[in-house]
Amino acid sequence: MSKEITPRQTDHAQWYNDLILKGGLADYSAVRGCMVIKPYGFALWENMRDQLDRMFKDTSHVNAYFPLFVPRTFLEKEEGHAEGFAKECAVVTHYRLKVNPDKKGELMVDPESKLEEELIVRPTSETVIWNAYRDWIQSYRDLPLLINQWANVVRWEMRTRLFLRTTEFLWQEGHTAHATADEAVEETRKMLDVYADFVENWMALPVIKGVKTPNERFAGAVDTYCIEALMQDGKALQAGTSHFLGQNFSKAFDVKFLSRENKLEHVWATSWGVSTRLIGALVMAHSDDQGLVIPPRIAPLQVVIVPIYKGDDQKALIDAKVSEIMKELKAMGVSVKYDDADNARPGWKFAEYELKGVPVRMAIGARDLANNVVEVARRDTKEKTTVSMDGISAYVKSLLDDIQSNLLERARSFREAHITRVDTWEEFKQVLETKGGFVSAHWDGTGETEEKIKEETKATIRCIPLDNPQEEGACIFSGKPSRERVLFAVAY
Amino acid sequence: MSKEITPRQTDHAQWYNDLILKGGLADYSAVRGCMVIKPYGFALWENMRDQLDRMFKDTSHVNAYFPLFVPRTFLEKEEGHAEGFAKECAVVTHYRLKVNPDKKGELMVDPESKLEEELIVRPTSETVIWNAYRDWIQSYRDLPLLINQWANVVRWEMRTRLFLRTTEFLWQEGHTAHATADEAVEETRKMLDVYADFVENWMALPVIKGVKTPNERFAGAVDTYCIEALMQDGKALQAGTSHFLGQNFSKAFDVKFLSRENKLEHVWATSWGVSTRLIGALVMAHSDDQGLVIPPRIAPLQVVIVPIYKGDDQKALIDAKVSEIMKELKAMGVSVKYDDADNARPGWKFAEYELKGVPVRMAIGARDLANNVVEVARRDTKEKTTVSMDGISAYVKSLLDDIQSNLLERARSFREAHITRVDTWEEFKQVLETKGGFVSAHWDGTGETEEKIKEETKATIRCIPLDNPQEEGACIFSGKPSRERVLFAVAY
Repeated sequence: MSKEITPRQTDHAQWYNDLILKGGLADYSAVRGCMVIKPYGFALWENMRDQLDRMFKDTSHVNAYFPLFVPRTFLEKEEGHAEGFAKECAVVTHYRLKVNPDKKGELMVDPESKLEEELIVRPTSETVIWNAYRDWIQSYRDLPLLINQWANVVRWEMRTRLFLRTTEFLWQEGHTAHATADEAVEETRKMLDVYADFVENWMALPVIKGVKTPNERFAGAVDTYCIEALMQDGKALQAGTSHFLGQNFSKAFDVKFLSRENKLEHVWATSWGVSTRLIGALVMAHSDDQGLVIPPRIAPLQVVIVPIYKGDDQKALIDAKVSEIMKELKAMGVSVKYDDADNARPGWKFAEYELKGVPVRMAIGARDLANNVVEVARRDTKEKTTVSMDGISAYVKSLLDDIQSNLLERARSFREAHITRVDTWEEFKQVLETKGGFVSAHWDGTGETEEKIKEETKATIRCIPLDNPQEEGACIFSGKPSRERVLFAVAY
Repeated sequence: MSKEITPRQTDHAQWYNDLILKGGLADYSAVRGCMVIKPYGFALWENMRDQLDRMFKDTSHVNAYFPLFVPRTFLEKEEGHAEGFAKECAVVTHYRLKVNPDKKGELMVDPESKLEEELIVRPTSETVIWNAYRDWIQSYRDLPLLINQWANVVRWEMRTRLFLRTTEFLWQEGHTAHATADEAVEETRKMLDVYADFVENWMALPVIKGVKTPNERFAGAVDTYCIEALMQDGKALQAGTSHFLGQNFSKAFDVKFLSRENKLEHVWATSWGVSTRLIGALVMAHSDDQGLVIPPRIAPLQVVIVPIYKGDDQKALIDAKVSEIMKELKAMGVSVKYDDADNARPGWKFAEYELKGVPVRMAIGARDLANNVVEVARRDTKEKTTVSMDGISAYVKSLLDDIQSNLLERARSFREAHITRVDTWEEFKQVLETKGGFVSAHWDGTGETEEKIKEETKATIRCIPLDNPQEEGACIFSGKPSRERVLFAVAY
């Protein structure tokens, strides 16, 4: 496979696919809409998952595992939820195949194995989990219940894109139960903060925290909070959501508890999730025409060292020095690889690690060794520097921190430059067409206007930012009065 | 729910279920044959998974993720494999539900969403993975490919039991590709060793390594290696398998590579897996009539400290001391909890942590504090000792090691006492009926005899042990000549 990457400006969608396929993150599979997450992509996901998992545990959550299958009648119990998910789900109707008597070597569904009640492959687990919570919660002493699950889910998407929208994807879903509405809202907001912290400080991607309009809410939620990120092509991407579910699911599944005041009350709920979609966001936010750019704190490989030599004697000297450096770096918790494979030239290796987004590359030649220096290239800016070998590990360690903050700052500057305040419909359309990004504008608060704006411009209301300043204004579309601006964008 | 455990002698199956349900490991779910793994059970699985994952990575394996769904035609490609799995699989036939026009509030399968080709929820992933490997492997330079996947799988079992046999279960499946048969066999054996190391040294459960007879082989394998453990009721349990798949899957999916000698050859394969079934083995191997007994190295909680006090003044003194001890223990990497909840008496707590199998319990009262001592109870032997506070952390740390090795030794003694050599059919039947355990006996090597023995006694050949001594003998059933003994047992 050619390793050439289509430039961003030529074809953004193809650039994105090239990065993922040629960078070794994922591959298409034979199953419609499903992808294979390849080892390099999965190592990235493991780093993201492990950090999120630590953050969940630090906020008193525990993990559990609930069944893959949702009985059809469970989905029916919460009306809004059913409407949202019934149209796009994988349905198990039978539990056996048999030899096809008419076609040699073929199997067919055994009609005698039809299930009395169909099973849905979980698109999300509220129903299965709240059905279990009914048995687990009796008293206020059983609350709060703070449970998270790492799982695969399936939504039968018609148009799929690697990581961004796949039929099956990996995610975590938190499902918590509380004695009061206030406590549940607090949890919803707390987990939004955890997501924002993770995406900004580990993925180096600034986000705007906000709340969704009723049109954009999760099916079954009272309020959906979200974090919204901006991609380099000016489109927004929803990076995570946290839902206040009110008593919708506790009522649908009859989950009550005896309060401190000895009253039987329905439980209050939240759910929150992020998925492998975040990898798509990561790719689109930081990468360039040479390949992926992965923030050091979640990079599967942080440093690669490439030797440049002629003959075994030079190689042996370089090996010895590299072995020292690697030992020091590993002791500092830095992941490092020495690529001394003899079947590729250094230039090919440089391009390969650039493609894979390894944050720091070191090249050591015989002359460098003689001069006690090493060439260090940083992936984010592509700057190369010749650095003394003395204290090289501390230098690299600090460079990794520098790259991490530079990526965040770069993305933040881009994002700040792409939030445009507009006050007229003409301006609104023009900004979306020419500049893209978030458009901050007044809106009359109706779903009808929201729908029409979407029809005409493809832009949706990404969120009403938290702590949004209140100001008098007129809706850019209807001209009706408005009390605050909201953020519009064309989104992934 | 009553926390009383049915005694082992009264009803072994009920004892097992009581331990799992009342110990908080898992719960039944509303979905037939599927269970919910509760937080305590999942924390145990996380510890097991994380250690196995480290061992896989230490042996150069990487993780990846492949689709949940197997197209029906994939399953057909390897004949033996199809025969083994087609009879018990969840089949997805449709991708949409719609509102049932005849029944208000109900959903029904939308007949217009019928899939052209059915999708099977993976019972195992050889077919999906080998289909992907076709694109990933061209040359001997791409080999070996050493990939592992942590995933959920579904096998439609008619009779299910918590952890031991559930419709959906969690597992890992390694799938490796090699240039030569020898290298693939070596990998198969290496992973068997990894499993044995894990089960013996982390789960404290001795195992016998062996190879399966053709009747008991994995569907699609050339050879199936296994580790077999013995439960307290004298039944055997297959704790893990590692398969040499020959070229069966590379031929079925046309996966070839250009060898060093520039010849196009089919790739050699292995696969190997362990699952949440191991938790069932753990429960049955070590527990007693008071509850679970969990080996310290994988215990979700290793030490619990319970205060015994009257009034706030005593409590404050105990709190201060406990805080010191906990800090020390945590610094040593010991997981420890201070249970000072005021809604339960110490005696209730003692019973609760015994039920949950926490390896070490410490109780500290006001008088203990005055005497500078603490009461330490070990879960395995239920011995209580009064120990000086001086150096208590080092004492507890060493006690945990001691419990770990004691559990292994205890299980090993039991296992050794339950391997019985027999030379006649009468003896064979009698041992199985009265004593149970492994029966070491001569067998004529035919599947027919194996089948008949199973019909008459329910015993199967668990394995032909590795490095089995060769000795002349006569088959206990047919009297025909035999060159080695094999291990029979009634198994889970």
